[in-house]
Amino acid sequence: MDGNAAVVLLLVLAIASSPLTGASLTKKPNFVFMLMDDMGWGDLGVFGHPAKETPNLDKMAADGMTFPDFYSANPLCSPSRAALLSGRLPIRNGFYTTNAHARNAYTPQVIAGGIADEEILFPELLQKAGYKNKIIGKWHLGQQPQYLPHKHGFDEWYGAPNCHFGPFNDKGSPNIPMYRDDHMIGRLYEDSEFMINHTTGYSNLTQQYIEEATTFINTQAAADTPFLLYWAVDATHDPLYASHDFLGTSERGLYGDAVRELDYGVGVILAAIKSAGVEENTLVMFSSDNGGATYAKTTGGSNGPFLCGKETTYEGGMREPTIARWPGKIEPGTISRQLGNLMDWFTTSLDLAGIELPQDRIIDGISLAPALFNNTPVDRPIFYYRGNEMMAVRVGMYKAHYWTWTNFMVDIDKGIDYCPGEDVSNVTTHDQVNNTATPILIHLGRDPGEKYPIRSGTAEYKQAMAMVRPVVDDHKKKMVPGKPALNKCDKAVQNWAPPGCEALKRCLPVPAHNEVDCTWGH
Amino acid sequence: MDGNAAVVLLLVLAIASSPLTGASLTKKPNFVFMLMDDMGWGDLGVFGHPAKETPNLDKMAADGMTFPDFYSANPLCSPSRAALLSGRLPIRNGFYTTNAHARNAYTPQVIAGGIADEEILFPELLQKAGYKNKIIGKWHLGQQPQYLPHKHGFDEWYGAPNCHFGPFNDKGSPNIPMYRDDHMIGRLYEDSEFMINHTTGYSNLTQQYIEEATTFINTQAAADTPFLLYWAVDATHDPLYASHDFLGTSERGLYGDAVRELDYGVGVILAAIKSAGVEENTLVMFSSDNGGATYAKTTGGSNGPFLCGKETTYEGGMREPTIARWPGKIEPGTISRQLGNLMDWFTTSLDLAGIELPQDRIIDGISLAPALFNNTPVDRPIFYYRGNEMMAVRVGMYKAHYWTWTNFMVDIDKGIDYCPGEDVSNVTTHDQVNNTATPILIHLGRDPGEKYPIRSGTAEYKQAMAMVRPVVDDHKKKMVPGKPALNKCDKAVQNWAPPGCEALKRCLPVPAHNEVDCTWGH
Repeated sequence: MDGNAAVVLLLVLAIASSPLTGASLTKKPNFVFMLMDDMGWGDLGVFGHPAKETPNLDKMAADGMTFPDFYSANPLCSPSRAALLSGRLPIRNGFYTTNAHARNAYTPQVIAGGIADEEILFPELLQKAGYKNKIIGKWHLGQQPQYLPHKHGFDEWYGAPNCHFGPFNDKGSPNIPMYRDDHMIGRLYEDSEFMINHTTGYSNLTQQYIEEATTFINTQAAADTPFLLYWAVDATHDPLYASHDFLGTSERGLYGDAVRELDYGVGVILAAIKSAGVEENTLVMFSSDNGGATYAKTTGGSNGPFLCGKETTYEGGMREPTIARWPGKIEPGTISRQLGNLMDWFTTSLDLAGIELPQDRIIDGISLAPALFNNTPVDRPIFYYRGNEMMAVRVGMYKAHYWTWTNFMVDIDKGIDYCPGEDVSNVTTHDQVNNTATPILIHLGRDPGEKYPIRSGTAEYKQAMAMVRPVVDDHKKKMVPGKPALNKCDKAVQNWAPPGCEALKRCLPVPAHNEVDCTWGH
Repeated sequence: MDGNAAVVLLLVLAIASSPLTGASLTKKPNFVFMLMDDMGWGDLGVFGHPAKETPNLDKMAADGMTFPDFYSANPLCSPSRAALLSGRLPIRNGFYTTNAHARNAYTPQVIAGGIADEEILFPELLQKAGYKNKIIGKWHLGQQPQYLPHKHGFDEWYGAPNCHFGPFNDKGSPNIPMYRDDHMIGRLYEDSEFMINHTTGYSNLTQQYIEEATTFINTQAAADTPFLLYWAVDATHDPLYASHDFLGTSERGLYGDAVRELDYGVGVILAAIKSAGVEENTLVMFSSDNGGATYAKTTGGSNGPFLCGKETTYEGGMREPTIARWPGKIEPGTISRQLGNLMDWFTTSLDLAGIELPQDRIIDGISLAPALFNNTPVDRPIFYYRGNEMMAVRVGMYKAHYWTWTNFMVDIDKGIDYCPGEDVSNVTTHDQVNNTATPILIHLGRDPGEKYPIRSGTAEYKQAMAMVRPVVDDHKKKMVPGKPALNKCDKAVQNWAPPGCEALKRCLPVPAHNEVDCTWGH
C-alpha cells in the first residue's frame, strides 16, 4: 500500500465509523422520498407477500437497508402525511379532531382546515438552504389555496390535493383538480389524461408520475442543484388503477397490478438517479402512509402477519414497509432494528443537509443517520394515536394498548370491517375500551400478531409497565395539543374555483359558506 | 472469441436452455434435503418474518430459488415425512387412519404400524445406484425395528425414531431412544448428551446434528461417493430447544432461538459443502414438514399471512418455506411459481440421478427440474388431505374446500385452537362440514388468507369449478387407498428394548401385547 492509498483507506474508515451528518458531507445530499398510499407492510416480496411481485423493491432492499419496525404517525392518510412533513405528531400539528373522541379525521374536499402556517415543513427549510423541491401525487394537507404545496416549501407540484375517489362529475361537488405547481390544469374524471376508468381500472396517472419524477431528477442533476423529490403516488388507494401494460398482469388482481406498476416506477426512478450521476449523493427512502385497507377485502393491501389494518392502532394499521438506499453510504442487505417513524424523514433530511432543527417546538422525528450509516438503533418510543387519543405506545419490544377499538358492530354489520376474520379476545373491541388503568400488554417479538396479551399479574407485566408508564407520563406531561385543523367542514371550500380555473375557463360557481362541525365515522 | 471459447459458450447455452436430467449430468449429483419440524411459512426473513433473524436462509434464497407455493402432503409430521420419502400421498402409502373420518394420525410410540416394505423410498433407489445415504434427526416412519431407516434405504442414522416430547423417565413408557445407524446409543432425557432441559430450553442436539452433517459431507466428498443427506432436525417442535450460544438471543423467545440455531446450521452446512469441493454438484433444498403450530401460541411458528396452522388443511397448515440452491445450475435470486410438494423431492432426486421411476404404482411427486433449471412451472394440482378424506384441492390459483374443519369447540374451550384469533365465516368450521356439492372456492392470488370465498352463483365460480371438478374426479377415480398403517396401537411396541439395548444393558421389560384401535383427537 502506498502512502496515498493509506490516507484514502483511513478516510474511508473514518467515514464508515461515524454517522454522517450535514457537516461531514462535502455536498448537500438529495432526497427522494417515496410514499405509497394504503400499501400494507406485507405487500412487498421482501416483506413476505407470497406473490413476490416487487422485484425492484426487493432489489432496493438487497442493495440497501430494510426497516421491519417502521411506523406511520397515524393510521390514516392526511394526519400521517402532515406528520411526515412537519416532523410532529398530528395531535401537535393540528391534523386531528376534537369533534368526537378518538376519531380518525382527514381532508376530504369539504374540510375547511389544512396545514397551519405556523407549522414548519422540512421542504421549507430545505428550500431556504438552496434545495429545489417537488411533490408528485397526493398532497392531502388541505385543498384551500393557502394550504397548497407551493405555500409550504415546494417549488413544483404535479398531482391532486385530495383523494382521487369521487366525485365523478361536477354535480354536488366539484371533481378533484389536477395541479401543475400552483395552478389547476384539469380535473380527474373530466379530462382524458386524468381519467380513471372504474370499470377497467385503467389510468395513466402512475406513468405520468414516473415521468415527472425522472424529468425532475435529470433537470436538477444537470443544474447541480440539491433536490427533494416527494413521490406521493396513490394507485394502491381505492379506486385502484394501473396503465395498460400492467392491467391484468398480477396474480393478485387490480391491487397487484397497481403494486407492480409502482414497483416498476421505483426501478425507473432508481435507474434515473444512477444515470443522472447523483446516485452517490442521494438518499432514497420508500414507505407507505398507513396500513393496508383490510376493509377493502380482496382489493386492499396485505399487512402480512399483523393484526387489522388502516384506521386502527394495531400493528396492521401503522407498521409500514420501509426501505432505504444510498450506494456507498448504506451497507447493502442490512436490516435495521430501529423503531422508525415517517416523522423521521423530517429530522433526517435536515440533519443530513446540515440544517438546524426548529428550537421553538417539540419535534417527534429523530435523525435516522445512526441507523442508516452505522446500523445503530436509537432508543425511542412509538405513539399510536387516533384523533385526540393516545391509544397505544411501543417501548422496545413491548406495546401497551391504553385504549382499544376496532370498529362498531353496527359498521361491521354493514360490511365495514377493519379486522376481517380476526377477533382477538380483549384486543379487538367493538367499543372504545379504556384500558388505561391496566393496559393490554403485548410483546411484539414473541407475538407480532397481537393475539396473546401478557397477563397483568405477572412479573413480566409489572417490569414492562414500569418501563412503559414513565414514557407515557412524560409524553402526556409535555403534550400541548395544537389547534385542531380537522373540526370544521364547509361545502363552499371545495375545489369549485381553484387557482388557474379562470385561464382554463373552468371555474364553477361557489356556494355560500356554511361551516359545520365535521362528522367522522371512525 | 477463439474457437474453443465459442464451443464452451455453445455448450453452456445448450445446458442453460434445457432442463438438467440424470442423462445430461456428467456426475451423479449429491442431495442435501433439510426438513424442519413445525416451522411455518412465515418464520424466515425471506418469507416476511418481521424479526428477520435468518440471515443464512435469506442468503440461500438470494443465491438460489424461492418457492412461495410449495406444500407438504399432509398437515402433520409422520404422514408428511412418509409422503416425502415415498413420493406418494399418505392415503396411498398407508400413513393415515380409518378409525375415524378425516382424522390426522401419526406415529407416537404406541403405534404398531410403520412404513410398509412394499413402499419404495427414494433413498432405497439411490442406494442401489451407488449413493451413500444418511438421515440426521427425526425418522417418524414407525419405531419398530422393521420400520427403521437402515431397513429403508439409509446407510447411516443419527437421531430418534419418534418425537422428542415425553416421556421423561422410563415409567409408563420408555424414553425415546437415540440411534446411531441401526442401534440405540442412549435415550433422550436420560443421558446428559441427549438432555433437553424443560426449564431452560437447553439442549445440545442441534449442534450434534450440525456436526454429524458436516462430517458426513466431508467423508463422502473425500471418497468421491454421491450422497443423500436428509437433515430432519426438530428443535422447532415442542419442546423447543437451543444450545447455550443461542438461548436468549432471539427477540421471538425460545422458538426464535431454535430458528436462529437452525439457520446457523444451514450456514455451516452450506459452507461445508463448499469447502468440501462439492458445491457445484450438490442440490440443497430446505423446507418444513407442516405448518407452524399455531395452537402453541407464542411458542410456535408463524404462518405469515396464511390462515390457521398445523393439523389443518388451510394454507397455514400445509404451505412450506421452501428454498433450493445449486450454484451454477439454479439462477440466483429467482422465484418459482411452481406448485411444489415435498413429494417432489422423491421424483426430482431420482430424475437428476438418472434413475427410472417405479412403474408399478402412482407417484404423486413430479420432477422439479424444469422449475429449478429453467424456471418453468409444470401444471399440477395440490391435494390437501386429513386422514382418509380429501379436504381441499388447489388447481392453478383456485383452491376448493370440499370439506372444512378447524377443530371442535370442545377443544377450543380447553385452549387447543388451531386458528387462534381467526374466525372466517363458512371457512373455519367447528364441525366436519361437507361442502362437496358446492365447494368453498378461494382465489389464492387475491385472497391468500382464505377469507373471501367466491360466491357460488358467479361466472368465476362456475368457470373455476369447471376446471377443478375434472381434476378431483380423475384423482378419486384412480385412487386406490393403501392399507392404513396408523390404525393400531399397542403399548408393547414401544421402545422398551430397541436394537443395541443389550450391549448397553439398558433393555426394559416388554409388556404383553394388547393391540387396540388408535384414537386420534383431531
